[in-house]
Amino acid sequence: MDKSTIPDSHRSLLDGPILVLATLESDGTPQLSTVWFVVEDDTVVISLNTTRHKTVNLQRNPVCSVLIPDAANPYRYVEIRGRAEITPDDGYAVADRVGAKYGADLREMDHEGETRVAVTIIPSRVRAWG
Amino acid sequence: MDKSTIPDSHRSLLDGPILVLATLESDGTPQLSTVWFVVEDDTVVISLNTTRHKTVNLQRNPVCSVLIPDAANPYRYVEIRGRAEITPDDGYAVADRVGAKYGADLREMDHEGETRVAVTIIPSRVRAWG
Repeated sequence: MDKSTIPDSHRSLLDGPILVLATLESDGTPQLSTVWFVVEDDTVVISLNTTRHKTVNLQRNPVCSVLIPDAANPYRYVEIRGRAEITPDDGYAVADRVGAKYGADLREMDHEGETRVAVTIIPSRVRAWG
Repeated sequence: MDKSTIPDSHRSLLDGPILVLATLESDGTPQLSTVWFVVEDDTVVISLNTTRHKTVNLQRNPVCSVLIPDAANPYRYVEIRGRAEITPDDGYAVADRVGAKYGADLREMDHEGETRVAVTIIPSRVRAWG
């Protein structure tokens, strides 16, 4: 198995509702939050408001990990470690694709003048458990 | 609010089935996994087999974070950042208390000769979301 590919046994987890994102604070402490995500071209993509602390962390240090639990059995999960590739999403193209998955309009979550970026997780190591 | 205390609004999450534990690899990359836990004296306690990679990480660097999701609404969660205090649990005293919560015998999960430690998360910062 390619160590950076999600095994077939755990691919259904990519349809799940949330992932847990770990970014790194400037002192190296892990920062955790749950975020919405989509999978495009076999890659995890998230949409972040640039005012969020997690976004600032990823802009300073793109090293990150995500854990996608099996909603029906959280002891079963996929962990993906890698690097966050951050691209502007001023037109909400990616934000709208994430919103479509969740039946939500991400514009309504942002204040006037705030902007969004698309964050693609470039995997370096995938670990499937359970 | 004391920044290292779990607010009353989110205390019920402590009854949840899992938490996500973030430890740090030697190169600073976050390592994520889901683990069982109990809350004792208002503090999160987990039981780890000493052969596990997460245990080795915590023994080298006790800096860690945990995220406890609301099982009914994973966008609601508590994140606790802090330090792992590791104590021997050769007699499975803590492991048995964790096992009692889940109706499991943690001895059956370990191979002969393996040992357990109790890991208490000493909080430095608590963040409640949702």
